[in-house]
Amino acid sequence: MALVVQKYGGSSVADAQSIKRVAKRIAATKRAGNEVVVVVSAMGDTTDELLDLAGQITPLPPQRELDILLTSGERISMSLLAMAITNLGVKAKSFTGQQAGLMTDAVHGRARLVDVVPHRIRETVERGQVAIVAGFQGVSSTNDVTTLGRGGSDTTAVALAAGLGADVCEIYTDVDGVFTADPRIVPGARKVDRVTYEEMLELAASGAKVLALRAVEYARRYDVPVHVRSSFSSTTGTLVTGTYGDRIDPNAPDGEQEETPMEAPIISGVAHDRSEAKITVVGVPDKPGTAARIFEVVAGAGANIDMIVQNVSAAHTGLTDISFTLPHGDSPSTLAALNGLQDEIGFASLQYDDQIGKLSLVGAGMKSHPGVSARLFGALRDAGINIEMISTSEIRISVVTREDALDDAVRAIHTAFDLDSADGEAVVYAGSGR
Amino acid sequence: MALVVQKYGGSSVADAQSIKRVAKRIAATKRAGNEVVVVVSAMGDTTDELLDLAGQITPLPPQRELDILLTSGERISMSLLAMAITNLGVKAKSFTGQQAGLMTDAVHGRARLVDVVPHRIRETVERGQVAIVAGFQGVSSTNDVTTLGRGGSDTTAVALAAGLGADVCEIYTDVDGVFTADPRIVPGARKVDRVTYEEMLELAASGAKVLALRAVEYARRYDVPVHVRSSFSSTTGTLVTGTYGDRIDPNAPDGEQEETPMEAPIISGVAHDRSEAKITVVGVPDKPGTAARIFEVVAGAGANIDMIVQNVSAAHTGLTDISFTLPHGDSPSTLAALNGLQDEIGFASLQYDDQIGKLSLVGAGMKSHPGVSARLFGALRDAGINIEMISTSEIRISVVTREDALDDAVRAIHTAFDLDSADGEAVVYAGSGR
Repeated sequence: MALVVQKYGGSSVADAQSIKRVAKRIAATKRAGNEVVVVVSAMGDTTDELLDLAGQITPLPPQRELDILLTSGERISMSLLAMAITNLGVKAKSFTGQQAGLMTDAVHGRARLVDVVPHRIRETVERGQVAIVAGFQGVSSTNDVTTLGRGGSDTTAVALAAGLGADVCEIYTDVDGVFTADPRIVPGARKVDRVTYEEMLELAASGAKVLALRAVEYARRYDVPVHVRSSFSSTTGTLVTGTYGDRIDPNAPDGEQEETPMEAPIISGVAHDRSEAKITVVGVPDKPGTAARIFEVVAGAGANIDMIVQNVSAAHTGLTDISFTLPHGDSPSTLAALNGLQDEIGFASLQYDDQIGKLSLVGAGMKSHPGVSARLFGALRDAGINIEMISTSEIRISVVTREDALDDAVRAIHTAFDLDSADGEAVVYAGSGR
Repeated sequence: MALVVQKYGGSSVADAQSIKRVAKRIAATKRAGNEVVVVVSAMGDTTDELLDLAGQITPLPPQRELDILLTSGERISMSLLAMAITNLGVKAKSFTGQQAGLMTDAVHGRARLVDVVPHRIRETVERGQVAIVAGFQGVSSTNDVTTLGRGGSDTTAVALAAGLGADVCEIYTDVDGVFTADPRIVPGARKVDRVTYEEMLELAASGAKVLALRAVEYARRYDVPVHVRSSFSSTTGTLVTGTYGDRIDPNAPDGEQEETPMEAPIISGVAHDRSEAKITVVGVPDKPGTAARIFEVVAGAGANIDMIVQNVSAAHTGLTDISFTLPHGDSPSTLAALNGLQDEIGFASLQYDDQIGKLSLVGAGMKSHPGVSARLFGALRDAGINIEMISTSEIRISVVTREDALDDAVRAIHTAFDLDSADGEAVVYAGSGR
């Protein structure tokens, strides 16, 4: 008997009809002999509607109250789902984050899990019932309701799977899995069958929205196999697991075995991201400690910075420019904090640019294959697209372009690396979903 | 410094605008130097909308899940209200029933309070903050979410007022207080300034919806002064307190003193109720234990029966009819249970009548003034209205009529007891509200 954790996003439980459909899938999984734990997000646009209500009350809602407000969304979906499953003759019970033992710190709005003690969930499945757990929420040591931030339901699912020792964590969404690029931009994009945690981490960090970054981190740390799949079909989706070795499937039928030569660079896919902006600190005196002070202040403003570029100091002025990217939402507080630093550091000015786009090519073995970056830069040049910033990791190259050039850039790179054909390895971007 | 518990019903917090208005009143009460605890119901029609959603899923939702579903309504209203108060510069925090220490038994859907341990509420007001508490909900000893049934928010407010030793429990609603009759039926109905717990109990039990019966019982047991008033005006409402002696206010200015002669019957008002139906068990063998068996079965079906009438046994048949009234909602299960009893008891048939109305005249000293019932029956006769059942208590006379005659009956009685004028004592019915 396998223990399966299933997570259904908001689009999978958008209305009563969808909830009944999902209930059938859960009941079938249970009747197939599995123990089933389900994590559910709020119905459809509920979270946005609640945020809108809060916005009608005050522009600056206290985060503690916002957490209480938003978690009512999962309370509604989880109880309705438990009713729908019960109505099919399978016993089901719903549990809040607090009842499910999802203990967090007290940082409202983006709490971190500190412990998972799912006694009641274990008891429930051992009694042969389906346990439904509210995603996205936990409880602090002071018995206050917390939320895990965007993507929190994925994290809830993976954390419960780890805490319960589940055999697999299935993430149900409105697309078939992880794709080589966003199919809305690249019509020839293909679903990939397997990716590693590391690739998925880079993809999630690079803008692929199909699986939340924190959930992938958690899955990697506790080695939880994650299956990303569609709640609208029974198609196998994308399996996210431990190592590259997993790509060679000894049980695969003849002809379906992976055929990539061992030493060739494996390109998984192309991710993109429009959610960042660029801040440039212009005319910074080029002396030790200045950059450290700037990023100390930026961190203090709560910004999650991504790429950083520092120009070579112009010899005759002794001044340099420092640019970095960060989420749009973090920009106001960061700009305010930097303004307050101008007298102390003596920089010339701040520039703000929210018309940028980021493209990331992800895959194994890039660093040892210099041809990869050459091919990428060449393809962008041939498409007439200017590169504004570059950053790289072991398995990723990211470039910043003008936002209005981003779609063309994604298509050019997808083609340049033969991802449109059936030969290339694959991975990446996929639709929305918390 | 007074400690005030205020309860706002769903119509007082129906939308963002209403919530802001209520927040202003709360902030003003706080700034006037009071400690303030607020109990809030779900916004407007939220509860009905959630019930409708559940109805789309299943006709028979498990009660435990229904409780989780419905309590999300208060979670939304309480957090929004806390935001609105904070936005006015007054610190406020919201608490679920579980966080507020409202411990109940495990009877989902109509849980009873077993303990009130409002540590966090006390700490919050002692820190100078306003505590907002979700009405209608509590937590069982197994950490499951429970609801207190319809009118539960009133009960939450009175129970917290008792547990905190509050100076007054203010119940805010959409009418000005308790009226001598429903103003929608009797245009000349007047607001009454004071009633006793006993009168209010009879009124609530007789269909007056302004204050829930259980809340009045609780207030009476713990001697909590309750002030029923409108959230749409600053008018003083109706004060519900301990004894008739309270009616004589030693501090009242000259000319405002109560002037009712000590020994005259005090008629408080006319309540009415359309929510009941009548079941008649026809042809019951008139032998010891039969009635007991019938009402044992009725109680087992969970019905809250109200009036009971047994006809004198017809001598030549040895058979009698037993009629009783009960809420419409309890009828299906009760009829089913009685059907199962037919072979055992050997009655002839069951009759069901949901076209009845109940009128109740409430006031002190009725039993010792036989003229009261004579005047009531006379007024109904003069209005051509037939009486189908009668029941009485120390301070109440109730009669059942055809439902379509009920409004005429209420008007006839209101006039017959001089309640239209400014001379009569007063009390009763008032609008909707949980």
